[in-house]
Amino acid sequence: MVKESGGLEWRINVSDGTSKVLVSESTSQSRVCRGLMRFFSKISDFFRKAWSMGVNEPKKTMHCVKVGMALTLVSLFYYMRPLYEGVGGNAMWAVMTVVVVFEYTVGATLSKCVNRAIGTFLAGALGVGVHWIASQSGEKFEPIILQSAAATFSRFIPSIKARFDYGAMIFILTFSLVSVSGYRVEKLFELAHNRLSTIAIGTSICILTSMLIYPVWAGTELHNLVKNNMEKLSDSLEGCLAEYFKDADSGDCNKKMQGYKCALNSKATEEAMANFARWEPAHGSFNLGHPWKEYIKVGALIRSCAYCIETLNGSISSDTKVPDFLKKHFRKFCIRLSANSSAVLKELATSIGTMTRSSKVEFLVEEMRSSVQELQNVLESLSKQPIQSTAPKNEGGTAEGNSSPIVVTLVQIVPLVTVSSLLMEIAARTEKIADAVNVLAEKAEFRSEKDEKPKKGQNPKAVDRNSGESEEDKTMMTLQKV
Amino acid sequence: MVKESGGLEWRINVSDGTSKVLVSESTSQSRVCRGLMRFFSKISDFFRKAWSMGVNEPKKTMHCVKVGMALTLVSLFYYMRPLYEGVGGNAMWAVMTVVVVFEYTVGATLSKCVNRAIGTFLAGALGVGVHWIASQSGEKFEPIILQSAAATFSRFIPSIKARFDYGAMIFILTFSLVSVSGYRVEKLFELAHNRLSTIAIGTSICILTSMLIYPVWAGTELHNLVKNNMEKLSDSLEGCLAEYFKDADSGDCNKKMQGYKCALNSKATEEAMANFARWEPAHGSFNLGHPWKEYIKVGALIRSCAYCIETLNGSISSDTKVPDFLKKHFRKFCIRLSANSSAVLKELATSIGTMTRSSKVEFLVEEMRSSVQELQNVLESLSKQPIQSTAPKNEGGTAEGNSSPIVVTLVQIVPLVTVSSLLMEIAARTEKIADAVNVLAEKAEFRSEKDEKPKKGQNPKAVDRNSGESEEDKTMMTLQKV
Repeated sequence: MVKESGGLEWRINVSDGTSKVLVSESTSQSRVCRGLMRFFSKISDFFRKAWSMGVNEPKKTMHCVKVGMALTLVSLFYYMRPLYEGVGGNAMWAVMTVVVVFEYTVGATLSKCVNRAIGTFLAGALGVGVHWIASQSGEKFEPIILQSAAATFSRFIPSIKARFDYGAMIFILTFSLVSVSGYRVEKLFELAHNRLSTIAIGTSICILTSMLIYPVWAGTELHNLVKNNMEKLSDSLEGCLAEYFKDADSGDCNKKMQGYKCALNSKATEEAMANFARWEPAHGSFNLGHPWKEYIKVGALIRSCAYCIETLNGSISSDTKVPDFLKKHFRKFCIRLSANSSAVLKELATSIGTMTRSSKVEFLVEEMRSSVQELQNVLESLSKQPIQSTAPKNEGGTAEGNSSPIVVTLVQIVPLVTVSSLLMEIAARTEKIADAVNVLAEKAEFRSEKDEKPKKGQNPKAVDRNSGESEEDKTMMTLQKV
Repeated sequence: MVKESGGLEWRINVSDGTSKVLVSESTSQSRVCRGLMRFFSKISDFFRKAWSMGVNEPKKTMHCVKVGMALTLVSLFYYMRPLYEGVGGNAMWAVMTVVVVFEYTVGATLSKCVNRAIGTFLAGALGVGVHWIASQSGEKFEPIILQSAAATFSRFIPSIKARFDYGAMIFILTFSLVSVSGYRVEKLFELAHNRLSTIAIGTSICILTSMLIYPVWAGTELHNLVKNNMEKLSDSLEGCLAEYFKDADSGDCNKKMQGYKCALNSKATEEAMANFARWEPAHGSFNLGHPWKEYIKVGALIRSCAYCIETLNGSISSDTKVPDFLKKHFRKFCIRLSANSSAVLKELATSIGTMTRSSKVEFLVEEMRSSVQELQNVLESLSKQPIQSTAPKNEGGTAEGNSSPIVVTLVQIVPLVTVSSLLMEIAARTEKIADAVNVLAEKAEFRSEKDEKPKKGQNPKAVDRNSGESEEDKTMMTLQKV
């Protein structure tokens, strides 16, 4: 009798020396039942997830419908005889092009289309040329290996990989096909012509469908990604500090706190998007020469700030105890600095989101700097005068003699010093982000906040004194709220 | 007269109101010359880079040769009549399969082959089935849009995207082709059979070439990536500290210091490699069920440690001045802790690299812990007793009264406290890495350091007292060097 997974198993010895397991029928049935149940619940889980994705991300659902439409359009070439005859019965290549080339964003689709067209054309020309030379000279030579190896090699070179990887593959493909077909197919030129025209049909259907029906622009996606990452960073920063100093209203900040993690790993996406965006025509508020590269720079700085927040997050969750009165003493200054930094980040995100130059940013950065100075002063004062255990009173500076001073040892204060200096580092990195956004605003010619103001290169305050003042009042009000 | 790019330009007004630019012949010639020179130097630069890449990375060069060989093999089907007739003149599909499916690593090639085969088979079966039902019932219905949309949608679902993205694409492709061909081609079954057999030929050539000739295993690449990242982290950590405390022999550590940046952005590569590695058969010292997922976990912890080093790097390059005597006082302890942490990382890297359980790691971790404690003690002592400006003397504890004590203010010490607490955080994260590597060693059944020792689950010291002791002596010697 052997125990197996909690149940009992009966084993009897059969005459030929082997043993046989007796399984009671009800057990095996129930096991099958349970297995089926688990299988179906997994499947239903899968479909539930897929459904919720479809509902939450209508863009992706729309993409699927678009692919279906493009395929329907291209399959018309099969169903209508004149069209079918027109491409010499090679409509298959058009279908294939649509399936392979249609991507989520317009930029990716365009890039693949151009790559496919150029790759096919170059390889076709080269293949036909080589074939012609071979037939003229009467010699047979076999450059296929050499060519393919060279083209494969070129795919490893980073600058080519980024933009022309797909083109290189298509080059290899077409060149191999033409080279080997040259040996068989007599009507080589017709083949090449058909191939090119079907690809032209396929790519144009793809481009039209992806650009005209609910287009998803890589540029817009990149723009929003950078903006959202900034906002998430800002939320995380506030969440972290609230968690550390256990704010009263910190009920839901744990979820917010994790936002910075999206920024940590967005490098690949940002670079791909920036690459695709360069292929896109002007759309929305983006011109043809929009400085997409600047977004990568801003993204890199956001990431470097996110690394800092990650470290901050790690160090606030360490379990070294800090005396409560010390925490209270630091609370105000730390939270003010983090609120200032996150206000700068939010303002920058808004500035990018609305594509306007914000006049507040400079002010907020200045405010952030003064908060850094304040925090530094607090640290300085700590070493000169002992802190009272009833911290709030010593702020006023009146009732100082009342309570007995408590000497603070350095070890007790280490976590607070670390948090403070990480906050200062985050502030410094936030300033760098502000500078990068400024460069972006310059290059992308962001609007000034009021349209009647001069477009660029001039300080709005110097030009329009009245509205400048009212704006400063507004910023002051915002800051008081912060 | 207009200035243009440093040269002079002569402009004359022609009678029809336009103006004409006179370019002196020598200038235009020299400009063309310069343009050509620049063009050629760019091209030669490009080839020089490509050449150096080829020399430095023989694996990649080998890959190119392999692609050429696979293509030659598959093109034999064109040149040999019996083979060509055998696949009904559809050898093109085999060539295409080789070009599209051949990837750098064995795992990626296998994954694409399996995806392509399954996708083609499923879609072909479904397409033929639908066609058959349609022809039986006499009705005409058009599931192509629905099917393609569903398959496109499935490509967005993360779990499918990771493993079956290519398969889904091939499914859409084949299904569309079969659906539309069904309307035209009468010999549908023959088409499907040909398609499948050519794909089988193409994929088997790919698999054989990639596995038999200098195979590049995704698993091995992942293994080495994780190991190298650990080593780079260890180097960076030492480099950072040496830079901060300006070691005498810190001439070349600036280059070493940047190593951690490789680890920051390796997430995507690691996940892709782990995904491909799962498709690979047993190879080298890796069994079929090698726990590739554990590498992702170790990689994530390495990255979290790298974030900390990034922050450390940022905070040591900030220009807050720290009094020299303070730096000297901390120097020994900080450098010892960083040396300990980096020794742990190096030992873990060696352990992964040789796939042996290291008996030293535990010891090194213990040593690291005691260094953390020491650093904490230094911080504690600092708040109690003032540091002497002649720091080395106070270590002995003898000549304490000689020099006048200097009171250290907290602000002066903030950068040092930050560096120290970041170092402690790094030590904590290093411990986590050690734990993860331990789990990996457990699951992957790493050898014990001496082969005669029992393989797993038992403490080597408890079993083999003699060799255990000698080993401890060895570790002691290593530690003294550290």
